[in-house]
Amino acid sequence: MVLGHHPGPTGSGRHLLFYGHYDVQPPEPLELWTNPPFEPVMAEGPNGPRVVARGAVDDKGQVMTWLEALRFWHETAGGPPCRITVMVEGEEETGSKNLPDFLDANADALRADVVVISDSNLWDRDTPAIVTSVRGLVYTQVDITAANKDLHSGLYGGSALNPINLITRILGDLKDEAGTILVPGFYDGVAEPSAAQRAQWDALGFDEAAFLGGVGLSVPAGEAGRSAPERLWARPTADVNGIWGGYTGEGAKTVIPADAHAKVSFRLVPGQSPSKVIAGFRDFIVDRLPEDAQVKIQVFSYGEGIAVPSDSPFIRAAQGALTEVFGRPAVLAGGGGSLPVVGQIKEILDLDCLLVGFGLDDDQVHSPNEKFDLVCFERGIDSHIRMLAALAGA
Amino acid sequence: MVLGHHPGPTGSGRHLLFYGHYDVQPPEPLELWTNPPFEPVMAEGPNGPRVVARGAVDDKGQVMTWLEALRFWHETAGGPPCRITVMVEGEEETGSKNLPDFLDANADALRADVVVISDSNLWDRDTPAIVTSVRGLVYTQVDITAANKDLHSGLYGGSALNPINLITRILGDLKDEAGTILVPGFYDGVAEPSAAQRAQWDALGFDEAAFLGGVGLSVPAGEAGRSAPERLWARPTADVNGIWGGYTGEGAKTVIPADAHAKVSFRLVPGQSPSKVIAGFRDFIVDRLPEDAQVKIQVFSYGEGIAVPSDSPFIRAAQGALTEVFGRPAVLAGGGGSLPVVGQIKEILDLDCLLVGFGLDDDQVHSPNEKFDLVCFERGIDSHIRMLAALAGA
Repeated sequence: MVLGHHPGPTGSGRHLLFYGHYDVQPPEPLELWTNPPFEPVMAEGPNGPRVVARGAVDDKGQVMTWLEALRFWHETAGGPPCRITVMVEGEEETGSKNLPDFLDANADALRADVVVISDSNLWDRDTPAIVTSVRGLVYTQVDITAANKDLHSGLYGGSALNPINLITRILGDLKDEAGTILVPGFYDGVAEPSAAQRAQWDALGFDEAAFLGGVGLSVPAGEAGRSAPERLWARPTADVNGIWGGYTGEGAKTVIPADAHAKVSFRLVPGQSPSKVIAGFRDFIVDRLPEDAQVKIQVFSYGEGIAVPSDSPFIRAAQGALTEVFGRPAVLAGGGGSLPVVGQIKEILDLDCLLVGFGLDDDQVHSPNEKFDLVCFERGIDSHIRMLAALAGA
Repeated sequence: MVLGHHPGPTGSGRHLLFYGHYDVQPPEPLELWTNPPFEPVMAEGPNGPRVVARGAVDDKGQVMTWLEALRFWHETAGGPPCRITVMVEGEEETGSKNLPDFLDANADALRADVVVISDSNLWDRDTPAIVTSVRGLVYTQVDITAANKDLHSGLYGGSALNPINLITRILGDLKDEAGTILVPGFYDGVAEPSAAQRAQWDALGFDEAAFLGGVGLSVPAGEAGRSAPERLWARPTADVNGIWGGYTGEGAKTVIPADAHAKVSFRLVPGQSPSKVIAGFRDFIVDRLPEDAQVKIQVFSYGEGIAVPSDSPFIRAAQGALTEVFGRPAVLAGGGGSLPVVGQIKEILDLDCLLVGFGLDDDQVHSPNEKFDLVCFERGIDSHIRMLAALAGA
């Protein structure tokens, strides 16, 4: 954890806590990167120059937007306009396991008026966005074992339990034809968006065809009968993020393996209990497990979905600053990703977060050739310079 | 291909073709081997000394049983008792792709009276076995692709198609609750065993509890309402031999990958058409494929199930020789594995095979620490020495 404090000018009333993270997702598959992932390069894109590297936008590059804004204040005004604490974490991508204890131990120093986080996207290149909710995340690894060794599929096929067939059967059952997730109790506590919320989202004109078209898809997957903002921001998911077992090399090996494995994660919305989801998922698997199979379930991430206020003096202040930079106010949008820190800060410090980020949907976050357009980076710096003044006076 | 001929004594009537293979399955997972897989070691087991190495029994060690028998004849009688051809292949484990052309090109030299193959098991340590059928094998690789790159499961989860969820859904559908394989047309041509065949198999007293118990299992998987010999020898299978996709490292990566893959194989019984099974499997997948997913199906092995005669002068001759060595005749049993060469030899050379092998069920064929008990190896040599005499005069 990197922690820094600046007292600000004597007598200033506000205390802002900036949070970001310097850790990144694994860069694999390496062969799809055009340059080594940890050697940033400048490249040309449709929006002009961009930085290409793992972490370019998530979140090293976005941390730099507010660090550069603080530098600007330091160089032009001798320091920030109010009391500042910065906190840059190194475990965000692996579930922020040690963050709660850290927040607890440093609560007095960290209890600011608002927490500013830039780890999200613009609405589009020319329209800022303030995120008013984040989904929670439960991330598990499922290990299924059967025979005590790998078996020959000719000698044992038809008699011995195959754990890969079993894991496909179990995970293939996760959703019905309409995309409804079948884990028992999974939807407990999930609220329907209000009519007003639905109307506000409909008014955004979210272009799902363009959103999917950008990654080579055309048909929305997920729950039937929902709009894209609902599915992405207000509905939970069940995704298998990885699977492996048996022979995965070239050609053929006629093996019935001893084990099979999967990474299975759930994005949660406000109201869902992560521990109930984990218990339900365990029951879901155990109910489908024959006598000769054993299962181990590891939990790597555990966090609730969180809604943040969509109106507050800080949001109004940020809107003013963003309008100066972009010529228009920020869209209030839901967020599909998870920022465990948002829930932990709410729970431990009883603070709300102001989520203003400068990425774009095509930044290839968590994918090869992750990038950050320079125009977004520069607007991010400019926005934070002005937000510092506005939030200090909010 | 290693090919050798010996004319035998002038005027001898019979011509025996010995077939074996020197190639092996990949040794992975390497960490489960107690010694390097390609450096054979002697170890002690419940049956006395054993050779531990990849290929110890499948099939290098069994090839040595008849090579040692030929050496015995050479050293004690100046040569074999009849005309001999030996053929040792290096592509058996990868589907014998080039064997048909080789058999065709060398048909005159290879057209013996019978083909002797040792690539199967004893009934138990003290009871020999002659295998009267082998299952065919169709081995495929299924590659499913969706988005044009890996996606962040927070930004896209709920909207983007996940190819791992999809492949588990498709493969999880392969069998119903009773173990019936749901590929369309899959059972076309599959004959029920005759009452006489069932009675002979029942009389064998196959101990499935011991068979499964030896590998840590207790409950037969596969089709309900069938005996173990039926499921292992007379019924086809569908096994996923490998699966991979997405993130498979330590911890968590919240990715929706661009692709997912599986190795899927089918053991076939006499009467099933491999090409119909492949076509049915393709239809089975395509029927379950949403618009945004693409599938590629590669076929690595392709062979019919084959029944060989359970009565012939050669079988009677072999029975006599085996009874001399073991004190009892061989059990006539079906075989669950696949020997593509048996079908190819039947089709191209119009020859039957005599399948007499000396492995044991616990030899860990295709698994780490594959072994061959020395007592089996020695009885195999002794059996081949005596079978050479008996078959030469059959």
